[in-house]
Amino acid sequence: MNPKVGRKLSNHNVIKVNLQDRSYPITIGSALLSDDFNSDKWIQGKDCLIVTNETVAPLYLDVMKSNIDDKTIEVITIKDGEHYKTIDTWSKIIDKLTAMRANRDTTIIALGGGVLGDIAGFAAATFMRGLPFIQVPTTLLAQVDSSVGGKTGVNHKDGKNLIGSFYQPTMVISDIDVLSTLPDREYKCGLAEIIKYGAIYDVDFFAWLENNMSDLLIRAPKKLIYAISRSCQIKANIVGEDEFELGKRAILNFGHTFGHALENIMGYGELLHGEAVAIGMIIASKLSPINSVEHNRLISLIKSANLPHKIELNDKNQMLDVMKTDKKVKNKKLRFVLLRSLGEAFIEEDLSENEILDAINNPFS
Amino acid sequence: MNPKVGRKLSNHNVIKVNLQDRSYPITIGSALLSDDFNSDKWIQGKDCLIVTNETVAPLYLDVMKSNIDDKTIEVITIKDGEHYKTIDTWSKIIDKLTAMRANRDTTIIALGGGVLGDIAGFAAATFMRGLPFIQVPTTLLAQVDSSVGGKTGVNHKDGKNLIGSFYQPTMVISDIDVLSTLPDREYKCGLAEIIKYGAIYDVDFFAWLENNMSDLLIRAPKKLIYAISRSCQIKANIVGEDEFELGKRAILNFGHTFGHALENIMGYGELLHGEAVAIGMIIASKLSPINSVEHNRLISLIKSANLPHKIELNDKNQMLDVMKTDKKVKNKKLRFVLLRSLGEAFIEEDLSENEILDAINNPFS
Repeated sequence: MNPKVGRKLSNHNVIKVNLQDRSYPITIGSALLSDDFNSDKWIQGKDCLIVTNETVAPLYLDVMKSNIDDKTIEVITIKDGEHYKTIDTWSKIIDKLTAMRANRDTTIIALGGGVLGDIAGFAAATFMRGLPFIQVPTTLLAQVDSSVGGKTGVNHKDGKNLIGSFYQPTMVISDIDVLSTLPDREYKCGLAEIIKYGAIYDVDFFAWLENNMSDLLIRAPKKLIYAISRSCQIKANIVGEDEFELGKRAILNFGHTFGHALENIMGYGELLHGEAVAIGMIIASKLSPINSVEHNRLISLIKSANLPHKIELNDKNQMLDVMKTDKKVKNKKLRFVLLRSLGEAFIEEDLSENEILDAINNPFS
Repeated sequence: MNPKVGRKLSNHNVIKVNLQDRSYPITIGSALLSDDFNSDKWIQGKDCLIVTNETVAPLYLDVMKSNIDDKTIEVITIKDGEHYKTIDTWSKIIDKLTAMRANRDTTIIALGGGVLGDIAGFAAATFMRGLPFIQVPTTLLAQVDSSVGGKTGVNHKDGKNLIGSFYQPTMVISDIDVLSTLPDREYKCGLAEIIKYGAIYDVDFFAWLENNMSDLLIRAPKKLIYAISRSCQIKANIVGEDEFELGKRAILNFGHTFGHALENIMGYGELLHGEAVAIGMIIASKLSPINSVEHNRLISLIKSANLPHKIELNDKNQMLDVMKTDKKVKNKKLRFVLLRSLGEAFIEEDLSENEILDAINNPFS
């Protein structure tokens, strides 16, 4: 008797993430939550727990709940921000699940950005050895990044993301309508990751971004759906080859080694992740064996997205020290993702400290 | 320059657990720790963390450490017992890993029984999204049960094993020599699980157990290696068909629904897990559509292992109430693993409360 059953989704793409028995679909489109959320199909058991945060809940919790039919819905609203990505918050979600007498058919729905998805996903991964898990990312960054790859977890006082699992969602629903309320600065952080996908994997997509950045900046729906879909497809291809990050998947960290160091030095929150990655990509590109035309195209695209492209540090050498303590430093050797050309990345371990320092200090020359 | 490299293991079996990209070997034999622990082959990275407990450490930690060559060895010794299978203990292991600056190549070695393996495995599953994990089970029960299947986790105040992951070890090393110090009561708990494998899956193995139980009771090495190997192979076959316990794997719970209820009523520790399962198997067999000859063979085999086969309860109806709150009660329906014949199990959901109560009260008739 549900009038929504069988209704066609309008204006959407479906990307399949192929990971053997852990494969799942990502649906990207508009009006997915408000109109077409087909809960009968998507939620297998009788009950679900929506995990959301104080920022997202007032905006989208009601619409999400109103479109889940014939299920028992429980909600837990956590505080917003990286600062709350802790064992303590995870533990609260676990307590909520035991209090509602959740069983292995209880679906966890993560309604929020990347941090929220990481915590909720870790709860899904670790309650009764794994619950069905639907991600509904509400930031552009989460839609193009954390929605693919199954990384879940929380921070430890000694480091970010030290605690976590690889755990794939049952499905991801990326509704671009929810991006309308996303602050501009956060939206642009998503654009930085989108630019990254073009740079490391697909020069045609990179060129498409050069031609369409102005439309993306005004969040034009069709262009946005295409950019998210292509980004997810690229990440899905890479993750499909290396689910557990033993090799190729590392190219997704293009710009991130420098970016993390910048975030660390500036203090988390001061410089947003995507902003730090944008600057990091320019430094990494400078270190790369690409020609100056391509290097300048990357700088121009980042500038055209209104992303920061440089930063004033009192002591740029500090970045090198910070990078040496980064967890991605395997066996103490500094590893960088560099570009062979636009659209092709590789891992480089044999760089001298002088080369690295030169790129940090003169990224534009 | 390591004299052990290339040395042949003597008197051992290797069982392969086939789980796609998560497959691993179980080596079962004697003198595996004292003589042949080939750490160069088994530990990939430069360092390892041995997780052990206060009971096992004085017995086997030194021999294990002395046979790990050219690696940095760290040790954490936790308290022994189900009571310490908590988030707090898990958290201590995580803190130890961050303190030793563990990376993704750091191997966790669990040296202990099932509880220890569960906690250490959960730490391995959740640190940096998964570390290499070697299980060295030191009880018969752990060697035949928790060494196959990848169940890891800790208890929550609201229930046992509510928190955990499926996480497969890199390998399992079951040295029967360590069983020489195992208390008799705990040893027999392992025999109860071994009997279970024959009953649910392999009537020939069941018959072999009938003929060899006296040798197993005196821990005769060759017989023991065979019994452990066959048990692991049976469990590996079942788990290989249903890694995430969505269907067939449930037959491994033969005797466990009643067993858990008994443990719960008696108080954990009063009746050991294997003892409760032994009694539970007899009740489940009574409920089963097998003939009385086979039912009596099961009772006789359990008696011949000197396992308890009955228990005095003031109110046996209490068992039914407890079972209704057990987490394995899917959608509130009581599910039982029954025997179609010795060697063949099935799941039954349509039993009346009267039938269940009758079996509890008259398991031998």
